Amino acid sequence: MIKLVLIRHGQSIWNLENRFTGWTDVDLTDSGLEEARNAGIILRKNGYEFDIAFTSVLKRAIRTLWIVLRSMDLMWIPIYKTWRLNERHYGALQGLNKSETAAKYGDEQVHIWRRSVDVRPPALEKSDSRYEANNPKYRELNEDEFPLTENLDDTEKRVLKYWHESIVPLIKANKKVIISAHGNTIRALVRYLDSVPSDGIADLNIPTGIPLVYELNDDLSPIRHYYLGLEGEIPAESIPRNIIK
Amino acid sequence: MIKLVLIRHGQSIWNLENRFTGWTDVDLTDSGLEEARNAGIILRKNGYEFDIAFTSVLKRAIRTLWIVLRSMDLMWIPIYKTWRLNERHYGALQGLNKSETAAKYGDEQVHIWRRSVDVRPPALEKSDSRYEANNPKYRELNEDEFPLTENLDDTEKRVLKYWHESIVPLIKANKKVIISAHGNTIRALVRYLDSVPSDGIADLNIPTGIPLVYELNDDLSPIRHYYLGLEGEIPAESIPRNIIK
Repeated sequence: MIKLVLIRHGQSIWNLENRFTGWTDVDLTDSGLEEARNAGIILRKNGYEFDIAFTSVLKRAIRTLWIVLRSMDLMWIPIYKTWRLNERHYGALQGLNKSETAAKYGDEQVHIWRRSVDVRPPALEKSDSRYEANNPKYRELNEDEFPLTENLDDTEKRVLKYWHESIVPLIKANKKVIISAHGNTIRALVRYLDSVPSDGIADLNIPTGIPLVYELNDDLSPIRHYYLGLEGEIPAESIPRNIIK
Repeated sequence: MIKLVLIRHGQSIWNLENRFTGWTDVDLTDSGLEEARNAGIILRKNGYEFDIAFTSVLKRAIRTLWIVLRSMDLMWIPIYKTWRLNERHYGALQGLNKSETAAKYGDEQVHIWRRSVDVRPPALEKSDSRYEANNPKYRELNEDEFPLTENLDDTEKRVLKYWHESIVPLIKANKKVIISAHGNTIRALVRYLDSVPSDGIADLNIPTGIPLVYELNDDLSPIRHYYLGLEGEIPAESIPRNIIK
C-alpha cells in the first residue's frame, strides 16, 4: 500500500495580511515557520520516511519543505522544484487585499474568482510590474506558457502534467514521496485523485501546515485519506471543508 | 570568464568540540549558522548569482547552502546532493577528540593522519556502530565503494569523478555554480584545479563559511582565486594556509 503525503505551506505573510498571493514570492510568518516545524515533528512521530520530495519554486513551499525535512533528519533526500507546482496564478488580483476586493466587486464575485473551476480572475497586463516572465526562475517557460491568470482547470492541467510525467514514475518505483505545495495545487491533485465533481470542489479548503496522507492502491487509485496530528490520524471530515483562508 | 564559488560549511558542533568528524552527520553551531548567513549576504552584496548548486549528503554542508541561498533569494535553484562531496572519511578516528588523540598517538602521527595525501587513518570495522553502509542515504553505494577510511587521494578520486561527470558539463553549459562542501573535498578540488604538488597541500586549510572564488578560462584552467568579504576580494595569500582547525 502506497502512502503519499501532501502538505500546504505554513502561514505566509500575505495569508496573514489577507492578500491574494498567487505567484508572488512571499515568505512564511513566524507562525508559518512553527507550523512547518510541527509538521516535521508530526511526520517523524508517526514513523514517516521519504525518499524524494517535490515542491514549487516559491519560497513559502520550499522553506516549509526544508523545515519539515530538517525536523525529520532527511535533509539529504533529493528535492525537485518546479513552477508546475506553484500556486494558482491570481492574475491582476495578486497583491490586492481580499476584503477590499470584496468591498469593491462584491463577495459573490470574489468567491467566484477564488473558487470557480472555470472562471479566471482579471488577467495581468504584460506591462505590469507583477508580470514575471523575465525572472530567471521561469526561464524554462515559453512566453505563451507563462500565465497571466488561471482558473483551477488551468492549474490542474499543469499540475497533472508534472504528476504523470515526473511524480507517478517515482511512486511506481516504490519511492516514498512528499509534496510541499499550495492550496490550489493540492486542491487540483485532490480533485483528480478523488474524482471530485466540479460542483464539489468549491468549498474544499486545504489547511496550512498539516500533513495530508493519501493511501493509494498499486494503480494509484485512492483507498482513503486523512490528516496527521501528533496523536495520529485526523479524519478529513473533521476538518471544515469551507474555511476559506 | 567563468566564476566558480566554493564554500566550506560553517562551524559544526564537532569543529567546536575539536573532534574528528568525517562522515558523521553533525549539525552547525549558532556561530556556523551565522557564518552561513554572512556568506549569503557577502555573495549578494558582491552581485553573485547562481543557476545551480552542489553539496554533500551531510547536513552541515546542506544547511550552509540552504542558508546562503535564502540570504540570496535563490531558494528556487536546483540543488544536487551527492556522497561524493562528503568530507574525507576519517575511519576509526571519527568521533575522537583531536587533542586526546594527539596525546595518545603523538602530534606528529595525528598531523600525518590529518594532512598526508596518502596515509589513511585506522579503518573502521564493519561491526562498528559508526559504519553507515546501511543508512538509506548511502544505498546507491556498493559495499565495496563504501569507505572504511580515506586519505586525501581517495577523497580526491571520488570528488573528481563527480566533478568531471556532473559539474563540468553544467559549467561548460554556462551555468553559474556554487559548491557547498567540506575542508578536504574543497582541498581536493583546489589541489586539482591549481595542480598543487603533493608536498604543497599539507598546510592548506580552507576557512569555514567564507566564499572562495575561482576564475576559470573556458577550458576551466584557473586564472586566479580569492576569498570574498563584505568589501569585496580578499587575497587568498592573506588567509593563513596553515590554520588547522
